[in-house]
Amino acid sequence: MAVRASRMVSGLSSVARLNWGLVGGGEGSQIGPVHRMAARLDGEFSLAAGALDACPESSRAFALRLGIAEERAYGDWQDMLAAESARDGDDRLDLVTVATPNATHYPITRGFLEAGFNVLCEKPLTMTSDEAADIIAIARAHGRICAVNFGYSGYPLVREMRAMVRQGQLGRVRLVVVEFSHGHHAAGDDPDNPRIRWRYDPRQVGNSAQFADCGSHALHLASFVTGRQVERLSADFASCVPGRELEDDAMVAFRMQDGIVGRLWTSAVAVGRQHGLTLQVSGERGGLRWQQEQANQLYWCPVGGRVTVIERGEAGLSADAERASRIAVGHVEGMPLAFANVYADLALAIRSQACAGAEQEGSGGSPDDALLYPIAEDGFRTVAATEAAVRSAKRHGAWEDVPTVPDPI
Amino acid sequence: MAVRASRMVSGLSSVARLNWGLVGGGEGSQIGPVHRMAARLDGEFSLAAGALDACPESSRAFALRLGIAEERAYGDWQDMLAAESARDGDDRLDLVTVATPNATHYPITRGFLEAGFNVLCEKPLTMTSDEAADIIAIARAHGRICAVNFGYSGYPLVREMRAMVRQGQLGRVRLVVVEFSHGHHAAGDDPDNPRIRWRYDPRQVGNSAQFADCGSHALHLASFVTGRQVERLSADFASCVPGRELEDDAMVAFRMQDGIVGRLWTSAVAVGRQHGLTLQVSGERGGLRWQQEQANQLYWCPVGGRVTVIERGEAGLSADAERASRIAVGHVEGMPLAFANVYADLALAIRSQACAGAEQEGSGGSPDDALLYPIAEDGFRTVAATEAAVRSAKRHGAWEDVPTVPDPI
Amino acid sequence: MAVRASRMVSGLSSVARLNWGLVGGGEGSQIGPVHRMAARLDGEFSLAAGALDACPESSRAFALRLGIAEERAYGDWQDMLAAESARDGDDRLDLVTVATPNATHYPITRGFLEAGFNVLCEKPLTMTSDEAADIIAIARAHGRICAVNFGYSGYPLVREMRAMVRQGQLGRVRLVVVEFSHGHHAAGDDPDNPRIRWRYDPRQVGNSAQFADCGSHALHLASFVTGRQVERLSADFASCVPGRELEDDAMVAFRMQDGIVGRLWTSAVAVGRQHGLTLQVSGERGGLRWQQEQANQLYWCPVGGRVTVIERGEAGLSADAERASRIAVGHVEGMPLAFANVYADLALAIRSQACAGAEQEGSGGSPDDALLYPIAEDGFRTVAATEAAVRSAKRHGAWEDVPTVPDPI
Amino acid sequence: MAVRASRMVSGLSSVARLNWGLVGGGEGSQIGPVHRMAARLDGEFSLAAGALDACPESSRAFALRLGIAEERAYGDWQDMLAAESARDGDDRLDLVTVATPNATHYPITRGFLEAGFNVLCEKPLTMTSDEAADIIAIARAHGRICAVNFGYSGYPLVREMRAMVRQGQLGRVRLVVVEFSHGHHAAGDDPDNPRIRWRYDPRQVGNSAQFADCGSHALHLASFVTGRQVERLSADFASCVPGRELEDDAMVAFRMQDGIVGRLWTSAVAVGRQHGLTLQVSGERGGLRWQQEQANQLYWCPVGGRVTVIERGEAGLSADAERASRIAVGHVEGMPLAFANVYADLALAIRSQACAGAEQEGSGGSPDDALLYPIAEDGFRTVAATEAAVRSAKRHGAWEDVPTVPDPI
Repeated sequence: MAVRASRMVSGLSSVARLNWGLVGGGEGSQIGPVHRMAARLDGEFSLAAGALDACPESSRAFALRLGIAEERAYGDWQDMLAAESARDGDDRLDLVTVATPNATHYPITRGFLEAGFNVLCEKPLTMTSDEAADIIAIARAHGRICAVNFGYSGYPLVREMRAMVRQGQLGRVRLVVVEFSHGHHAAGDDPDNPRIRWRYDPRQVGNSAQFADCGSHALHLASFVTGRQVERLSADFASCVPGRELEDDAMVAFRMQDGIVGRLWTSAVAVGRQHGLTLQVSGERGGLRWQQEQANQLYWCPVGGRVTVIERGEAGLSADAERASRIAVGHVEGMPLAFANVYADLALAIRSQACAGAEQEGSGGSPDDALLYPIAEDGFRTVAATEAAVRSAKRHGAWEDVPTVPDPI
Repeated sequence: MAVRASRMVSGLSSVARLNWGLVGGGEGSQIGPVHRMAARLDGEFSLAAGALDACPESSRAFALRLGIAEERAYGDWQDMLAAESARDGDDRLDLVTVATPNATHYPITRGFLEAGFNVLCEKPLTMTSDEAADIIAIARAHGRICAVNFGYSGYPLVREMRAMVRQGQLGRVRLVVVEFSHGHHAAGDDPDNPRIRWRYDPRQVGNSAQFADCGSHALHLASFVTGRQVERLSADFASCVPGRELEDDAMVAFRMQDGIVGRLWTSAVAVGRQHGLTLQVSGERGGLRWQQEQANQLYWCPVGGRVTVIERGEAGLSADAERASRIAVGHVEGMPLAFANVYADLALAIRSQACAGAEQEGSGGSPDDALLYPIAEDGFRTVAATEAAVRSAKRHGAWEDVPTVPDPI
Repeated sequence: MAVRASRMVSGLSSVARLNWGLVGGGEGSQIGPVHRMAARLDGEFSLAAGALDACPESSRAFALRLGIAEERAYGDWQDMLAAESARDGDDRLDLVTVATPNATHYPITRGFLEAGFNVLCEKPLTMTSDEAADIIAIARAHGRICAVNFGYSGYPLVREMRAMVRQGQLGRVRLVVVEFSHGHHAAGDDPDNPRIRWRYDPRQVGNSAQFADCGSHALHLASFVTGRQVERLSADFASCVPGRELEDDAMVAFRMQDGIVGRLWTSAVAVGRQHGLTLQVSGERGGLRWQQEQANQLYWCPVGGRVTVIERGEAGLSADAERASRIAVGHVEGMPLAFANVYADLALAIRSQACAGAEQEGSGGSPDDALLYPIAEDGFRTVAATEAAVRSAKRHGAWEDVPTVPDPI
Repeated sequence: MAVRASRMVSGLSSVARLNWGLVGGGEGSQIGPVHRMAARLDGEFSLAAGALDACPESSRAFALRLGIAEERAYGDWQDMLAAESARDGDDRLDLVTVATPNATHYPITRGFLEAGFNVLCEKPLTMTSDEAADIIAIARAHGRICAVNFGYSGYPLVREMRAMVRQGQLGRVRLVVVEFSHGHHAAGDDPDNPRIRWRYDPRQVGNSAQFADCGSHALHLASFVTGRQVERLSADFASCVPGRELEDDAMVAFRMQDGIVGRLWTSAVAVGRQHGLTLQVSGERGGLRWQQEQANQLYWCPVGGRVTVIERGEAGLSADAERASRIAVGHVEGMPLAFANVYADLALAIRSQACAGAEQEGSGGSPDDALLYPIAEDGFRTVAATEAAVRSAKRHGAWEDVPTVPDPI
């Protein structure tokens, strides 16, 4: 079966829907509804099983309300894993999404991969790079997909940036500047605000708060659009709000393969910023600029020329961008549709698994270069970069290497 | 059953999904995929039947590819109407969307309403105001919902504008300025571009092109946000591209109930504009400004104060806006989610129909003031306004009355 | 002497400064300081005489404080005219600026022209088109310059728009859309706010308020950038704030030479707008867009292409734009520098008068097509257009012709 | 004599103009015309003497063309210093501006200060912090003003930011983020472009290129708006264009007094950026954001509130901002007017010198806290910070202290 990576026809599924399982994303979760919208948008996935909440009763009750059959509405992920592993044929889950608290990503993802399921794990993939390396090895060993939800990479114009770099329109890339700064934790001194406090508690999030939470997205995008990995970095972490053990603001200088210079700033106390996710890439022939808050425009300037506005949906964009666009130019496509592009690519990959041979490499499980969902190797790299940034910040900005993805054994 | 018009929990359907039928929206249609995304997004509707294309073979084939069962994949809408009218109980269609060429809206909508189905019709509801009056009467007589897809009214911040006006934050509204201008028909002298040419062919679209196509959206929004109807208008139509029989640019001065002054400009030859749908409302206490291309920000300025930026998803917005928001502040929600809000409100209305008594008024079929989908009365008003604009333009800008919705007989 | 209309070298005056006289612009005046900055900026003009205030004592006192010599610090313009007419040689005033209340423009401008002075009159040139025709005839008869301060035409990128149209980059111009809307008179019901009230008093401003005040600037720019005159128009005037005799909001449809379609909206009650002066020009080959509040960027979109950003000061702009730019690209040039471009062109014209023969035409007094300051003919046209708009509004939008500039007798 | 720091009345000089001397700024210089416009704008200064060019003949010829009297049109600054030192009384120069190549700032500034002249020196004040310390001592010893032209601090809304911080509206400042990035040196591999090449030649500019040129402005503004000095920093320098000895891109983390966290990015190869000078200041009560390319708007967001737009020229701004504004709200004021504010404050300070006692402190020579022109101490600090950044970059990001201004001996 040839996987055609052409424009997604929304809702076109001549074959049966894929069975989708969800772990986490219970009632009140912020990311759960986005996964459900994204999985549902193109009609490719049908929510078949779930363990949605840490509380078993809530978990089952919410699953029922979401239309999951009673026997597949689980109280916890261990039950789900056991019961779903026993199912086969048309009932078998095609994909399991893991959207639980960070520290649980590793055991859950590991469990489902080992049982032969494809997994889409929320970021961070794991709490340590050792765990991430483990996941990669398991995914490879079982020939399963382990995707990681760096969902901003699904925006059509982010994909256009990547395509333009690959096509050589920028020439050699010299400089990547990324930002992900907001001000939503500026009022954090309130001890009664548990929604914010846990984010700065090392026992819950590890050794990094804002960099791991937001900076890692920005760093992933730097690699996604340039196709180059971060090799080393120097970090400055700051806790601007008194009393925080972990950083709420970070600045990181980095170097990528082929000598690309990198700059990153991320903050949770930049009052007045809502969601300042911004990418700038400059090369010897031109530069690109994109902001998530105005996601449907991409600014391109050839060296010596003028800034021009590339509109999502316009004619003549790359196949990658075109495939990721669903509506006419001039209309806004937002974040749920970006996330849906991750699911759409996963659907293509999953449908091709049956016929694909064993020759595939990496945890992506995809023989098709055109499928752009981030995979466990990307998850490893950002976890490893976070570890390096923590070390660097502790060592007053000393440059630290970011390890590469371990070779398959 | 009490219909709670609170924040939509995406995918929350403790009861069975609603059965959805689609007429039109065949392969290659621009609006079809948006309806499918919008209907599917919250998991409320399941596509159960369709007559999707003017060509019976294509119609059936595409329906199958969309996962419609073979016996409900129809070759034309007449067959669909006949066969679906015979179904009952759980199989019965809860909603039929009509997304066919404009001239067919009337017979199809009429047919399904008379057979007792709820209908969501693309705009324009009909080609004449007499037909629209007819539709209203039929919907009322059968107690069915006849909604019209002025989908831009589903944007959360458009609903916030409406709520702020209703709450009196602007004081008496003085002035409404609306625009819907693009430049996509500027290269229209190409006789080989059929995608554009038919839009200026009176036999296909009636007596108005750009005003009926885009201006009508802008005019609907003027009424939607102010809660006032257009009473009279003066229009200037122009055919900027040589050879066009109908207008590709129009300017309309109007007056609304309570003396609100209105200004409208719509163009298809404003080169450089992608989708310039803009609303400004000024009142004695403050003014609002919103643009579709930056749909997640609303600019509010109290008289004597400063412009402030209202963000979609922020705390403290009206119940109407909050209910229409699905993701966190700072992230972009786009047009498919706006359209999905029309479907979401329809789902609530349809679920309440069973228990609602006969006391409802209008074609909306809803006893609940909080449900904001546009209805046949709105469709009538824009068709009538288009007729008045055509008359005024022919009479060199003479002011023409816009008739009110006919009273129930 | 050849006048080279090349890039203005600020402050380059190998010859003596020009003698400048000012009528009006007294202490507290808004426009007076701008004239003084604009005249002074390039070092071309030296303020030599003035009658600055309606109160003779204030007039003389303020003149002294501005460094005017005591014998040329006048109590009223009649004294100034009499005394300055008697001066000759190096002392003679080279230019008199008239910045008094509107109703006095005619007699003062007339007086100085008849005495052989060059005049720069604030807009409106006169209160009636008959008076304006008179002024034109007098300027022509005396071979003097009568310029009118439509100062926004001095912005470098407005001049670039004009140059691009003339060079044919837009092809045939089809559509001009202009706006000049603010919200600064929205709180106008306050009877104690004399700063606003007089603007709506017919005895002080004539038959039009907002259109004459702001709309006229927008209309002038429509002609300035297209090089075409307004031939006829249809107007809708509205008094949004209760109690106002004159319009505070106006919409005008118009047609220009060569069939260009025009749209204009101007408002003083658009709360949240500071100074919404916007120009859009669309032609068969492309479109331009410019906003005064972001005056250093011009948006250009070729038909079928992408929007590109033209930056003031970038290389390769027209000679007209380059000559009007003083600082490096990326820095902001604002309104005082735009006004200074009017003075800079006037300086060139005045210096060329000595050597120019009698063959010049029009009130501009300039043999050089490259000098772009607006002249009495422009003043006539906007006054005549205002009269036509007033008639049209009274006749409910009936189309009215705008008379052309009278031929020289 | 009390210096009233109220709104500048343009051109109001009841006393004689101040005598102004200019060193550098010859024909073709970029910054020379800006100084002449800025000094001339308010009518306070009259260009009385100059040594404008490295070539004596060009120097004298250009001075004559600018209207300088022949005997004060000098061939070099040494002649000018000698001759002008001999003048006294009304002829005496009140201010000398130094706008020569960087390496000459020190001897020229030193020379004029020692001769008892007030000096405004272009940035950088000197090439080393030792020289800068020297200048401070000389200025103090002679009781003369030594100002440094960090002209961006003259923007009214930059002054508003400073005032808001001082008034406590932000509470304790936590974070300052500054950028000054452009792409104008991206095509720098062209060996034939001398306009760019010298900027990366250590013999001409010292040990830093982009940081010293642009980053220093950003760093100065960080101190200007917060009122706090930079204490230590960690820098990463990169030469993105092959062949450059010095950095064309730099990232600097810093800490200020009172623990303020600082982030700075500056680049000359960020293709598509014209003049990305941006300031963000976040405090415990709110945050501010300003961009030079949209200099007339300031974005203010209280913690927990909405972003509001502060307009230059609106009512109710601080006295500092109001005094620095010349035209009505909604109109653009640009860079030349910002620079003019430095001159305007200098004029006030100079006029007060006569009557001021010996009690003044620092090189500013001003007893008036309200006068905001940057002084030699600011020059010292940025030179010292540049030295620290060079050291840090060489030591791979090690944190380096920035020395404080030396105490008066």
